[in-house]
Amino acid sequence: MNHESIIHMIGRILQIEAVFLVLPIIVAIFYKEDDFFSFLIVFLICLVGGGLISLKKPGKSAFYAREGFVMVALGWLVMSLMGCLPFVLYGDIPDFTAAFFETVSGFTTTGSSILTDVEALSHASLFWRSLTHWIGGMGVFVFLLAVMPMAGAQDMHLMRSESPGPDVGKLVPKLKNTAKLLYQIYFALTLLLVGLLLITGMSLFEALTLSFGTAGTGGFAVKNSSIADYNALQQIIISVFMILFGINFNFYYFLTVGKSIKSAFKMEEVRVYLLIILASTGLIMYNARECFGSLFDSFNKSLFQVSSIITTTGFATADFDLWPTASKTILFILMFIGACAGSTGGGIKVSRVVILFKSFHRELVRFLHPRLIKNIHSSGRVISRETVSGVKMYLAAYVIIYMISVLIISFNDRDIVTTFTSVAATMNNIGPGLAEIGPVRNFADFSVVSKWVLMFDMLAGRLELYPMLLLFAPATWRSK
Amino acid sequence: MNHESIIHMIGRILQIEAVFLVLPIIVAIFYKEDDFFSFLIVFLICLVGGGLISLKKPGKSAFYAREGFVMVALGWLVMSLMGCLPFVLYGDIPDFTAAFFETVSGFTTTGSSILTDVEALSHASLFWRSLTHWIGGMGVFVFLLAVMPMAGAQDMHLMRSESPGPDVGKLVPKLKNTAKLLYQIYFALTLLLVGLLLITGMSLFEALTLSFGTAGTGGFAVKNSSIADYNALQQIIISVFMILFGINFNFYYFLTVGKSIKSAFKMEEVRVYLLIILASTGLIMYNARECFGSLFDSFNKSLFQVSSIITTTGFATADFDLWPTASKTILFILMFIGACAGSTGGGIKVSRVVILFKSFHRELVRFLHPRLIKNIHSSGRVISRETVSGVKMYLAAYVIIYMISVLIISFNDRDIVTTFTSVAATMNNIGPGLAEIGPVRNFADFSVVSKWVLMFDMLAGRLELYPMLLLFAPATWRSK
Repeated sequence: MNHESIIHMIGRILQIEAVFLVLPIIVAIFYKEDDFFSFLIVFLICLVGGGLISLKKPGKSAFYAREGFVMVALGWLVMSLMGCLPFVLYGDIPDFTAAFFETVSGFTTTGSSILTDVEALSHASLFWRSLTHWIGGMGVFVFLLAVMPMAGAQDMHLMRSESPGPDVGKLVPKLKNTAKLLYQIYFALTLLLVGLLLITGMSLFEALTLSFGTAGTGGFAVKNSSIADYNALQQIIISVFMILFGINFNFYYFLTVGKSIKSAFKMEEVRVYLLIILASTGLIMYNARECFGSLFDSFNKSLFQVSSIITTTGFATADFDLWPTASKTILFILMFIGACAGSTGGGIKVSRVVILFKSFHRELVRFLHPRLIKNIHSSGRVISRETVSGVKMYLAAYVIIYMISVLIISFNDRDIVTTFTSVAATMNNIGPGLAEIGPVRNFADFSVVSKWVLMFDMLAGRLELYPMLLLFAPATWRSK
Repeated sequence: MNHESIIHMIGRILQIEAVFLVLPIIVAIFYKEDDFFSFLIVFLICLVGGGLISLKKPGKSAFYAREGFVMVALGWLVMSLMGCLPFVLYGDIPDFTAAFFETVSGFTTTGSSILTDVEALSHASLFWRSLTHWIGGMGVFVFLLAVMPMAGAQDMHLMRSESPGPDVGKLVPKLKNTAKLLYQIYFALTLLLVGLLLITGMSLFEALTLSFGTAGTGGFAVKNSSIADYNALQQIIISVFMILFGINFNFYYFLTVGKSIKSAFKMEEVRVYLLIILASTGLIMYNARECFGSLFDSFNKSLFQVSSIITTTGFATADFDLWPTASKTILFILMFIGACAGSTGGGIKVSRVVILFKSFHRELVRFLHPRLIKNIHSSGRVISRETVSGVKMYLAAYVIIYMISVLIISFNDRDIVTTFTSVAATMNNIGPGLAEIGPVRNFADFSVVSKWVLMFDMLAGRLELYPMLLLFAPATWRSK
């Protein structure tokens, strides 16, 4: 294991976190809030600590895939650890496990909360809580790639470990430029959303925090009622932007730099994703029709919830736990499908689901014509055997981790729907589940053990399983 | 498509069914029951109809895998169609859908019932209902293989389509002898169980019907209380025999004909299967301790339910729907794991689960050592790449069919636990689920559409998905 590189990189991550911590400090100054000091202390720890441990440049030792995995997993843990300190120091969330849960939930863009009353938090805390979504959405290592020179294959290994999807590709030949481009698109879309929300008359504070939560597909809101008390126009704007942030960012690359609208709309994943949203919205509009006041209300609430769940954001405008079984089942299935690869959303990802269905179809054809060799195509190109096999392995790994987590949580003795959806909501980075953790409830009542399991699931889900698994595998740490 | 062969074989299946129908006729005569005539009529239809359509010997036309799949799927449907007629004719179950549901549930060894009062049935009907479990347990085509000469690769294709497991092997060089051997073991074990139950003082009628239900891992009982009202000794005997029938039959082959106790206990699948039973029993004994009267009661009830669910039998000695969440979660997970391949049990099968876990482990190792090529071993031999890949595909197909079924059933608007466990209980050929379809409830209240979906799932689960899927795929019926 290349300890030098890892320690150096953790230092860099802390420095980046310090830069981001400047924002809640400004907010605290603006609102004249006491937690200015706690943010300042953590800012200094990150800046000085990060600076000290990244002082020593790593030698030219080898950097392989496993270093990439471990670095990313450790980086996210350290980032969350530092990120929760302001809550603990100021006493907003005095319990360490709870504060860590809230911060992991933030960075992983999950949005599951242990807070019963978010409105009691200071502006600075609320701002930081939402900002963690934005940072985690596109990924902090991708940010690092965009700003820091990297040696050898280090950049590729880091990119692969942090970015979602069955095969992480480059938009442009240089990975550094790909990372820059991704953050530019991310920043531009976020800015556009902030602007639109301001035009509707929303305050700057709310426009910023809600935009962070939407852009990162996180789901932390600044009101106890989530998004329910905003007006219909604002809700629809957020619906649309949740959908936009759940789209593979290659789409925007094609539309802008790539200048090829055809390539953009040829992306099968995007088309399937939009189709699922359309079909699910229609089905819920029909199935839950008695829960809505008017046709527009029905459309607005259904579209919002479908967008919120499939993109794994987790905002709510209605208590969907009260909807009929079919609507809840659709939402439960959407939780696992998730958004597009290469977006800020979580879940298994639409591209993997597409590959699984095509692979399933090919298997049936193979029974009829055993000698026929048929490749799987998507968006006009052949999907490699390795990718297809990797996707099936990923599903198996997902099921295994899901079931083991559910089994542990079940000993917390909450009802079975709460138990099964708590893992679904965290592992897929959604936020709320059903029953006792529905959109108007929270995760406060879970035992400490359950909370740690759910934190593991959030990180495992956000980093697509393997980094977190390898971090805790003894074999990783044995020198070969 | 080789229609001639298919029609001929369906005729044979009907003739075999006629032979089995003689047994309930004898029971009806013995108990002087009126439904003697309905059984006689169906017996004659099967005998004469089957005889007529199998009169014409099929020519030497080609017989491929797809013919095997279609033949098995159609054979099971026709067999269930005929099998439900006595219930409808006599009026025990006047509704056709309900009667068909009950019979499909019988042949597929599921044991999900639409009856609220099984004790109201005649002895002959109860006997036939349990006998369908015994016939379906080892498979009717395997029976056919044992008694009928087959041409070309026909026997292998049929065996593959009906027998459970990731790779269906022969025990002895000739498939015909393998089939005979399997039925001999099956018959001997059943006889042993009947004998033991008689010694405990059980009536011959109950000993036979319960043995059919145990041997086929079916789960239909002859009392409304399932197995709860039998004495502890009888319950323990049934527990042990459920476990025995859930073991891969190769195990018994090694023990008897193969004369190699070492080979028998080297079977990893069997060891893992017994270990899961042991661990689950222990966990439930602890978790549900407050639901039991004494330590013995706790052991007896936990072992019985674990054995009943993992072997996918579905008998009950307690209302496990009242147990704590962790116990219910364990049972839910066991539903999917299922019994050993090459047994009469359903589910995904322990051998597949073992391969999935090993494949998962290998994937993690591969991230650490990308150049290492590592085969997956089990029971001392290498598992081929095709088998491993087939297992992962099977899991994906399983998840897809499970989710689509749940989605359709969810529109029946029953609660979410009932919805999700109804498909789990039928697709894995268990019988009871949780909540509204728990062990003291039944499937009567599902809509007609839901019942047909669940019937499809029972057949798909018993025949390991592909035969039923290919039967309904238009491509199967296009001539190439």
